[in-house]
Amino acid sequence: MTDNILARAREMDAADPLAEFRDRFTLPDGVIYLDGNSLGALPKATPARLEEVVRGEWGTGLIRSWNDADWIDMPRHVGGKIAPLLGAWPHEVIVADSTSVNLFKLIAAALEMRPGRKVILSEPGNFPTDIYMIAGLERQGLAERRLAERGSIAGALDEDVSLLLLTHAHYKTGELFDMAALTKAAHDAGALVLWDLSHSGGALPVDLNAAHADFAVGCGYKYLNGGPGAPAYAFVAERHHAQLAQPLTGWFGHNDPFDFTDDYEAAGGIEQLLCGTPPILGLAALEVGVDLVAEMGVDRLHEKSMALSEAFRSCLAAHGVELELVSPEDPERRGSQLSFRHENAYALSQALIARGVIGDFRAPDILRLGFAPAYLRFEDMAEAARHLAEVLASGEWQRPEFNCRAAVT
Amino acid sequence: MTDNILARAREMDAADPLAEFRDRFTLPDGVIYLDGNSLGALPKATPARLEEVVRGEWGTGLIRSWNDADWIDMPRHVGGKIAPLLGAWPHEVIVADSTSVNLFKLIAAALEMRPGRKVILSEPGNFPTDIYMIAGLERQGLAERRLAERGSIAGALDEDVSLLLLTHAHYKTGELFDMAALTKAAHDAGALVLWDLSHSGGALPVDLNAAHADFAVGCGYKYLNGGPGAPAYAFVAERHHAQLAQPLTGWFGHNDPFDFTDDYEAAGGIEQLLCGTPPILGLAALEVGVDLVAEMGVDRLHEKSMALSEAFRSCLAAHGVELELVSPEDPERRGSQLSFRHENAYALSQALIARGVIGDFRAPDILRLGFAPAYLRFEDMAEAARHLAEVLASGEWQRPEFNCRAAVT
Repeated sequence: MTDNILARAREMDAADPLAEFRDRFTLPDGVIYLDGNSLGALPKATPARLEEVVRGEWGTGLIRSWNDADWIDMPRHVGGKIAPLLGAWPHEVIVADSTSVNLFKLIAAALEMRPGRKVILSEPGNFPTDIYMIAGLERQGLAERRLAERGSIAGALDEDVSLLLLTHAHYKTGELFDMAALTKAAHDAGALVLWDLSHSGGALPVDLNAAHADFAVGCGYKYLNGGPGAPAYAFVAERHHAQLAQPLTGWFGHNDPFDFTDDYEAAGGIEQLLCGTPPILGLAALEVGVDLVAEMGVDRLHEKSMALSEAFRSCLAAHGVELELVSPEDPERRGSQLSFRHENAYALSQALIARGVIGDFRAPDILRLGFAPAYLRFEDMAEAARHLAEVLASGEWQRPEFNCRAAVT
Repeated sequence: MTDNILARAREMDAADPLAEFRDRFTLPDGVIYLDGNSLGALPKATPARLEEVVRGEWGTGLIRSWNDADWIDMPRHVGGKIAPLLGAWPHEVIVADSTSVNLFKLIAAALEMRPGRKVILSEPGNFPTDIYMIAGLERQGLAERRLAERGSIAGALDEDVSLLLLTHAHYKTGELFDMAALTKAAHDAGALVLWDLSHSGGALPVDLNAAHADFAVGCGYKYLNGGPGAPAYAFVAERHHAQLAQPLTGWFGHNDPFDFTDDYEAAGGIEQLLCGTPPILGLAALEVGVDLVAEMGVDRLHEKSMALSEAFRSCLAAHGVELELVSPEDPERRGSQLSFRHENAYALSQALIARGVIGDFRAPDILRLGFAPAYLRFEDMAEAARHLAEVLASGEWQRPEFNCRAAVT
């Protein structure tokens, strides 16, 4: 049976229009990498590009590269390349800081655009940093956090809410929000919306402007393959640029950073989201990853990601494995991942890692498997499903070494 | 005469205990780099270290490197290496975000530690981002900016001041503040002090704890040679760790980031200054630069930097050049730079660059020459002085192409 499953998977690989792209990534031998939703794999072009930036632009160009290599423009330049992946205009997206820091800027901006409304509405169990970033503003007396379960978000939108802050694809379950419907509900209540696209940008079609979204942020190191701790991006709809004001008023967000005046005057466009000096190494690596995603195309990536996860489920079923799926059954309603609830999810994830199948654990009881369509094969689905079936059947996950939690999982 | 000057400079190079370190940096042929105070040169060890991090830790280790390569600990680890350069304990310094973002965290923290006092006191003409970062908090109604000229800072410290925010070595003139005296004056007035060490950390001895400083921030890409847009560092004296609270409450500053709870609980120590996911490529490059500074030793670097700038002045004098020095005459009272006022400073800097002597221009009328002691020779001082003398004598700076300002200077 295992042979049949594998043979069918290989047929699917042979018919996969994105199959050739796997070779554009570095993937270690003996590993099936189901964690590209946590840290995307290394594009093969990245080391050479970094070498060029480091030895050439930094080493030889030195300070001149701010002009000659256009470092000064990289946040806009790379942001402009991310924009079409999100249904945004190039001048609406910029690369800056981290997702967390960008959340702060835009939560604070929303509070200022909706005076008298202090509530930031989110859902419990949203990715921690999304909720945590409200805490600082709350302690400063500027914001008030309100959390409402998925089903009751629309009802929690009232005249006190300045901003609805949600993650498009849930980090744990992969469940997608209806971006257009919730954006409309927020607007009807007079609130703004901020979408965290960390688990959807680059993996599935996002259409911020079609949904009339106000703000968005997202991560550079997951589906955009920008490397560990890559800089993040932020989107502000053009209609808000004129009245936008964010509190991290650093010199790179100034209208004329090199005029060296004492008074802050914000740049007019999306550049006002910049704060300190942009991280050039991180931007250069991110650009390589973004270019690859653009070349593959988000629509094709999405098609393949749905096919991969459905193939994985079929293979699990063929092996007779039954696990509680916490992701939506319908692949159109989830991001590029499948999450299963199991009371020993941590040990299961460790036992899989020992077999070279790298997924991850999300507390307290979720085994999360990501299906980055850029570099995974259907063969990997068959093999990963076989390993999971064997781990469960053998009980090897019960070994003590798989039950001792490390710092990061 | 020129031959004599050069011969004497070469004798000084022969006697320089740091001379051998020049070869540890990449420096392009035909360039005398007097802008290491803006972007430090590339350590030769950096490309290989980045290659290792990118190909090995990211490409092969993938997500596992957060544990296996100890990425998770890098902000503390590199911060702990920077600490002794600043007279701080390792657990008092962390690498995070940009200088600007760290300023925001610590200005806001100071406001919270001094309730009822809204004034942030700085000086006009401080580095723009230091002053700009007050603006966002001012617009939020949390802070009030007060600027006092150098001579009247002590008098401007009253019961409304929560924080005195100064740059230790002035970015334009290099003039040093008396850190201990001003810290004491601020404390006597009940205020806290935040020192921006961007132009002193790694170039001259700084002793934060001897001065009883409260907070400090600093830049990774100047004297620490961390590369363009390198992550920055922040210091908080241990005595403040328990009551510290900063508003950028991201998941990496949480007491248990991977517990994925809804409520923010700050880490106990300096880690609470972390916000988003740390930039690993930037941290790796910065570590190489910091290791080099530590190996050379700040005391030796400071001695050499004073000797270099004095040698440059002697060479200028020998060429009969008279320029208005805006840096202090006494090398003990300035950072590792000399700044000259000239109404055509921009054109002068461009004419020098055309000759391979890279200094910079700071608006409106400053020619700023930095003397990074890690990789400059006394011979470079003699040659740079000769070029400057020739540029002035020939009037070549009057050419049109040297009078057209580029974006970054």
